Amino acid sequence: MHKISLETDIMDANEEFARENRDHFKAHNVAVVNFMSAPGAGKTSLLEKTIARMKDDLRIGVIEGDLMTTLDADRITALGVPAYQITTGSVCHLDARMIHNSLHNFDIEGLDLLIIENVGNLVCPAEFNLGEDLRVMVFSTVEGAEKPKKYPVMFHETDAVVLNKIDLIPYSGVSLEELERNVREVNPEVDIFPVSCTRGDGLDEWTQWFTERISALRGKAEAASV
Amino acid sequence: MHKISLETDIMDANEEFARENRDHFKAHNVAVVNFMSAPGAGKTSLLEKTIARMKDDLRIGVIEGDLMTTLDADRITALGVPAYQITTGSVCHLDARMIHNSLHNFDIEGLDLLIIENVGNLVCPAEFNLGEDLRVMVFSTVEGAEKPKKYPVMFHETDAVVLNKIDLIPYSGVSLEELERNVREVNPEVDIFPVSCTRGDGLDEWTQWFTERISALRGKAEAASV
Repeated sequence: MHKISLETDIMDANEEFARENRDHFKAHNVAVVNFMSAPGAGKTSLLEKTIARMKDDLRIGVIEGDLMTTLDADRITALGVPAYQITTGSVCHLDARMIHNSLHNFDIEGLDLLIIENVGNLVCPAEFNLGEDLRVMVFSTVEGAEKPKKYPVMFHETDAVVLNKIDLIPYSGVSLEELERNVREVNPEVDIFPVSCTRGDGLDEWTQWFTERISALRGKAEAASV
Repeated sequence: MHKISLETDIMDANEEFARENRDHFKAHNVAVVNFMSAPGAGKTSLLEKTIARMKDDLRIGVIEGDLMTTLDADRITALGVPAYQITTGSVCHLDARMIHNSLHNFDIEGLDLLIIENVGNLVCPAEFNLGEDLRVMVFSTVEGAEKPKKYPVMFHETDAVVLNKIDLIPYSGVSLEELERNVREVNPEVDIFPVSCTRGDGLDEWTQWFTERISALRGKAEAASV
């Protein structure tokens, strides 16, 4: 993000909207997850696979962030799940105010899980709290094993790293072991899930973890509201 | 980039530094090229291949932009070409002031060609004029054929699009034809170079185009200085 004198004010304003979002989410007992990645890492593909496996048990809604087009929201809607597209124009991330405003048009009443798919960008989205409960980062293994070192912020700020496109590993010259080691160097406690959205590898383990985390988040919220 | 009330001032200040950079570059008759891409598209790999083919005929220097590490500058220095690493911390792009400041530490005297490798980000770098003569964008074909539609700004603002990793096309499910069509839809006049940096496909065509453009830029500058 841009280092300017008003940066603190911008981040303070974002935190204020994030707090309001969080209160709104809690009041509706909806778990909220922020999915982040570089462009083309496979966030939407992962969501398609994940939602298909979870939608019979959970009422899911999705907010999509993109500079342009409703392509991603169309893919989610095709699954029979409500989706709302935020088009940011030239803005390289979602912020809490955009989410706040979208909630005037997108009804979360009755949802168990709200998924926010951020703009494809390996840098800025990690700096903007949206009021979410959980952060998941998707990384395409073919982008290179050294990337956690070069772009540590998002790897550090996430609860899980999904390493997608492992089906391309044999052709890419990338070492999955080196990549995992570099992820752990930046974030020793993070949960790592190597997957192939096209071939299906690793999706069982990922979906089980994700389902359990959502269940725990909603249980905690229900207990707190008693 | 962040839409705030001071945006105009930030961009005005950037343009002022960009003008100074451009004057400085022109005074030294050095052609300057800004390489941009998402993380992991292969900018540094392309530069390694390109520089190896051109360095006997041109005196080349490189300024590298990354959030962290000197990994990319180390790769360039290994080619026997001077490189200077700007580490931006959490800033998602290079701006003209960073380049301006780096010129206090990196001597362009005697260079024919200065290559600037921007921070890996498909959004913000395109909005910051660095004072360069030419823009080249690298895109990894496996990131998906629809990306030009979703991230049109950089595709629109570049002089050439290098489509890297075509060796992975057969395994990726991406259509090169559809990708090229989407690039042309955003930027009908742009030059497109499908390449594989690992296998070598397309590097002759790309290097020939690049060499000719650099030669034309320097010829023009020399003619103007007479």
